[in-house]
Amino acid sequence: MIPIQSVSWGPDGLSVRIVDQRRLPAEFTACDLRTAEEVREAIQSLAVRGAPAIGICAAMGIACAAAAYALNDRASFRDALGKAALTIREARPTAVNLGWAVDRVMARAAATTGDNHAVVAAVRDEATRILDEDRQMCEAIGVHGAELVPDGTRVLTHCNAGALATGGIGTALAPVYTAAGMGRRVVVLASETRPLFQGSRLTAWELSRAGIPVTVLADNMVASAMQSGSVDVCLVGADRIAANGDVANKIGTYGIAVLARYHGIPFYVAAPRSTIDPATPTGADMSIEERDCAELLRPFGVSVAPAGVLGRNPAFDITPAELLSGFVTDAGIHRPPFRFT
Amino acid sequence: MIPIQSVSWGPDGLSVRIVDQRRLPAEFTACDLRTAEEVREAIQSLAVRGAPAIGICAAMGIACAAAAYALNDRASFRDALGKAALTIREARPTAVNLGWAVDRVMARAAATTGDNHAVVAAVRDEATRILDEDRQMCEAIGVHGAELVPDGTRVLTHCNAGALATGGIGTALAPVYTAAGMGRRVVVLASETRPLFQGSRLTAWELSRAGIPVTVLADNMVASAMQSGSVDVCLVGADRIAANGDVANKIGTYGIAVLARYHGIPFYVAAPRSTIDPATPTGADMSIEERDCAELLRPFGVSVAPAGVLGRNPAFDITPAELLSGFVTDAGIHRPPFRFT
Repeated sequence: MIPIQSVSWGPDGLSVRIVDQRRLPAEFTACDLRTAEEVREAIQSLAVRGAPAIGICAAMGIACAAAAYALNDRASFRDALGKAALTIREARPTAVNLGWAVDRVMARAAATTGDNHAVVAAVRDEATRILDEDRQMCEAIGVHGAELVPDGTRVLTHCNAGALATGGIGTALAPVYTAAGMGRRVVVLASETRPLFQGSRLTAWELSRAGIPVTVLADNMVASAMQSGSVDVCLVGADRIAANGDVANKIGTYGIAVLARYHGIPFYVAAPRSTIDPATPTGADMSIEERDCAELLRPFGVSVAPAGVLGRNPAFDITPAELLSGFVTDAGIHRPPFRFT
Repeated sequence: MIPIQSVSWGPDGLSVRIVDQRRLPAEFTACDLRTAEEVREAIQSLAVRGAPAIGICAAMGIACAAAAYALNDRASFRDALGKAALTIREARPTAVNLGWAVDRVMARAAATTGDNHAVVAAVRDEATRILDEDRQMCEAIGVHGAELVPDGTRVLTHCNAGALATGGIGTALAPVYTAAGMGRRVVVLASETRPLFQGSRLTAWELSRAGIPVTVLADNMVASAMQSGSVDVCLVGADRIAANGDVANKIGTYGIAVLARYHGIPFYVAAPRSTIDPATPTGADMSIEERDCAELLRPFGVSVAPAGVLGRNPAFDITPAELLSGFVTDAGIHRPPFRFT
């Protein structure tokens, strides 16, 4: 039972339907994306976000773009498809799933003989596979990760690595949903995740919807919650996992990992295998997206800093592998040392 | 040179003039408080905030209340004065300076022989002394702390422990202002300090006003800033210091102290001696104010979490003495072990 389907085919089959995550929790609205530019804009503006969901949306977006060019001549169709893929692929730099999903549907297109319609059908099929596989990987993460969430567990999570971030029941939240589904009592502490409040806006929303108790904390309250013994385990997602196990994830993740280590609290990263990037040796080789400082300095259009003051707005940070208790992937729980190939 | 005088006597001498810190940085307005209830409300709503500034405002508020009752008979005057003191003293629980300042002016009142007018004059004199002494203590903190801020230092601070929080140039920011006044280049990183943004709203405002470069970070960006080598020293204020050196300060301070320890970055607490409370043995004996969760869940009236979701909003946390490199007080730099009597 998926609490919310964040990405799916639009009702006409020619669009990607997403839950517009910019508007939650005030408004729960869908948005249908038809062109590569619309998909790119939705990814950049975080209307759709979460590494797996971005990958799915990108793949489906290429399928929709392909359909729109199907009546072109073959060369022009292939050219337009390549441009659409590039437009979408470069929307954001950090999550590996985006490039991975785009490359996968494009490889399928390249491998498809036959006319444009055959290519459109193949790309569409591949995008659907990516969605279905992601859903299954989330289920598997939940099954494997449930052992980390015995009855009465208080889980701290950061940002949103739930159903809204994936095609299924999430990554970090999958073990929570699975444990709750087994009748275990689980409480989630959600750090709000400035600047864009994905923890309070999205994680709290989807958990509430699923009937799982959730308490929101400011990011700077995590340490005192750990100090007071209110956190049993930390579970977060990932945007890219390097070959050595270093993790890029939402800004703030690294600090939580350090605090967890200091307090002796287990810290796990949950992600499908599509988030592992063996081509990136370490965290130092990852590109960290810097976003517009207005997200930080003018939340909801309100200036929280005087005009002219500088801000920093890295969207991600790097957690070194040495701070992790383990990874929860669809293949099981991986404990150190890590070596992904 | 004080960048901003946050608390002073009103122009008529019968009120306390404060900078209304709820409205910064959008509006820079003063507010004149005349009654104990107005002072209490200003303290509770954080129109005036910062442990030293609260103490000063409380003392001056009692003086204003005393003046208003001066024509009462002696017994009724003393009774009204006691009630005013109680009203103000209980406005907030954590900062020791509030109770300390109230007790000090009331002790002076009790020790004053003569008529009501003599008591009013004595209380007023004592309140002025508290203001003047705080200004001098800030200066001394700056002089002693400047050795922690050599040329080119990048200082991380949290919340606002600057001029807006004191009667002078601040506590944590005093060494910054002093070092800058000596011609040293200093850069401040200000964590925004959710839920009420005192770092971005207030610290960035007063430093900008003083021409000192400041960059605002979300609270969850502190760890990655430390990881990237962008922080040379942490300087924060305090709301109460226990006899063993444990520190109550704005929520988030404890986490920064843990992160500083992990990264090998010196972490100092700057405070006047009035913030030391030898009667409180350890941090465990301190009362931590829990504030309305709306501050967290509805910043600027915008719901960042779905209706019905729980939040936590402790205003302070406790940093154990073992995480401190030292204290900077008006008496000098104190290094471990700490024992305040």
